[in-house]
Amino acid sequence: MHGIIATWRMALEGIEKADAMLKEGKNASDAIEAAIREVEDYPYYKSVGYGGLPNQDGVLQMDAGYMDGDSLSVGAVCAIEDFANPVSIARKLSQGTVNNILAGQGAAQFGTEYGFEQKKMLTDRAKRIYERKKAELAQNDQLRPYDGHDTVGMVCVDDESHVVAATSTSGLFMKRNGRIGDSPFVGSGFYADSQVGGATATGLGEDIMKGCISYEIVRRMKEGMPVQQACETAVNQLDETLKERRGQAGDISVVAMDCNGNWGCATNIEGFSFVAATQHSAPVVYLAHRLDDGHTVFEKADQQWLDAYMHNHSAAVE
Amino acid sequence: MHGIIATWRMALEGIEKADAMLKEGKNASDAIEAAIREVEDYPYYKSVGYGGLPNQDGVLQMDAGYMDGDSLSVGAVCAIEDFANPVSIARKLSQGTVNNILAGQGAAQFGTEYGFEQKKMLTDRAKRIYERKKAELAQNDQLRPYDGHDTVGMVCVDDESHVVAATSTSGLFMKRNGRIGDSPFVGSGFYADSQVGGATATGLGEDIMKGCISYEIVRRMKEGMPVQQACETAVNQLDETLKERRGQAGDISVVAMDCNGNWGCATNIEGFSFVAATQHSAPVVYLAHRLDDGHTVFEKADQQWLDAYMHNHSAAVE
Repeated sequence: MHGIIATWRMALEGIEKADAMLKEGKNASDAIEAAIREVEDYPYYKSVGYGGLPNQDGVLQMDAGYMDGDSLSVGAVCAIEDFANPVSIARKLSQGTVNNILAGQGAAQFGTEYGFEQKKMLTDRAKRIYERKKAELAQNDQLRPYDGHDTVGMVCVDDESHVVAATSTSGLFMKRNGRIGDSPFVGSGFYADSQVGGATATGLGEDIMKGCISYEIVRRMKEGMPVQQACETAVNQLDETLKERRGQAGDISVVAMDCNGNWGCATNIEGFSFVAATQHSAPVVYLAHRLDDGHTVFEKADQQWLDAYMHNHSAAVE
Repeated sequence: MHGIIATWRMALEGIEKADAMLKEGKNASDAIEAAIREVEDYPYYKSVGYGGLPNQDGVLQMDAGYMDGDSLSVGAVCAIEDFANPVSIARKLSQGTVNNILAGQGAAQFGTEYGFEQKKMLTDRAKRIYERKKAELAQNDQLRPYDGHDTVGMVCVDDESHVVAATSTSGLFMKRNGRIGDSPFVGSGFYADSQVGGATATGLGEDIMKGCISYEIVRRMKEGMPVQQACETAVNQLDETLKERRGQAGDISVVAMDCNGNWGCATNIEGFSFVAATQHSAPVVYLAHRLDDGHTVFEKADQQWLDAYMHNHSAAVE
């Protein structure tokens, strides 16, 4: 039973591609990499890959992670600049026994050495958004990270029950130079174990990592908890702990899939969107809502929502 | 009930300093920072701070992490160069709500902005060891990471039951440029929760992070498991899982302390050394041995061992 699940509407085109690959019998590693590359390549998504928004110095730095649930191999790049597909470099890094996580210029050095595509990733559109934000902030406030922080994270299972998880992001808009969020950190941004399933997170990385939430969700599933319950209880517990200890909790949204293709989602924000496809259901965009009792419910996004999404994302930037 | 525990014999002088501070009523944050700075400053320890061994390009890059168990705040620097005390920068970074983990030049930029001491960290001694290794490897082998990878990791509890964990390392000798191990990753290299306790790990970072082992030990303690059992069961389980999935497991050693000052240690290597001090016992260097039944036992290091250690570490390098 194959399937793939991903954070945010932006994953849709990638999930459609991966779903077709899985149906052709392709493996989870190739499908998830292709799906995330699709998101990285799309110029209108402002928080992943090409077209992503830069840090406070105007430089676009990206994080990506990859985990193979058979061998538990992990690979990641942190704060890498000007490579087209960070997720592909992360996957390549996962194939070594050491040096799996590389940051900054070291990551770029590896990317160059292994012939990964170099590309100027900061678009004119992203530059205009940055300049506008900078001017706005100069008027009335200090520079500080914008709260848009949408990582694309995916979990994929193929017909051989091979589970893979991967992430890619340009991180917080207006972050400091060199800032790393949860996306390249195994256990926080992603986790996969083919005997159990996988999970991935998006939101405020600095808070997500305080609970190693992707690891925790897979751990609960390993103990026998159904995937939806594992997502909900882990998110609710971290959300409560953060509020108790810190007075507030950053955004936390997760998606997960077990090794049989059952999936779940939980969030502490309103209207988190995600995309899921399985052997028996075509790719669908869902919107999640957390109820007062702590359960997360979801509904298919309607055509009006989908149209408004595309309109907003491709709108001209003055 | 205050106390402090740390990985490896190299922590001794730092632990003595921290122990005295705790006895004077100083808090855990100041004590652990002072202790780790002591190790960072000591020129003869080859895997932490000043005198640490460089990466394959001959550049010394350091990782450090810090976690406050009250607020769960975390801070870390990754692959930072030429700052005297990475742990102090990590602690400072933990005080913000975002941008807590910085890598490479961004970490250096922050260190400069906040006035942290800059220092040429590569010693002539370390350079000689590097040159010798490089010549050796050129003779008969490709460059590959040397298996010395000793992170100093500590957990400290003060009389207010405030639990703090911190780490510092120059990472794998001959690692790739930009390589990050588990030491700056919350949940893998370190974890602290003042309601429970803290844990920290040393060994092959790339394998330690596959099990988020510091988080997992604290989680087990939270469920009521005594600290020694939490350490042993977590290490044994990760060791077994890695052998089952990968055919082998890298070195994994951990120390932990609960919020009442009880401590534990576990390892999958022979002769792992660590240092512990509590309100009722002066700093002692212990050597740990894993028994065939999976339990880890420890004994005080005798004078002969201690003398040999100092002799080896301060021996001249041709």
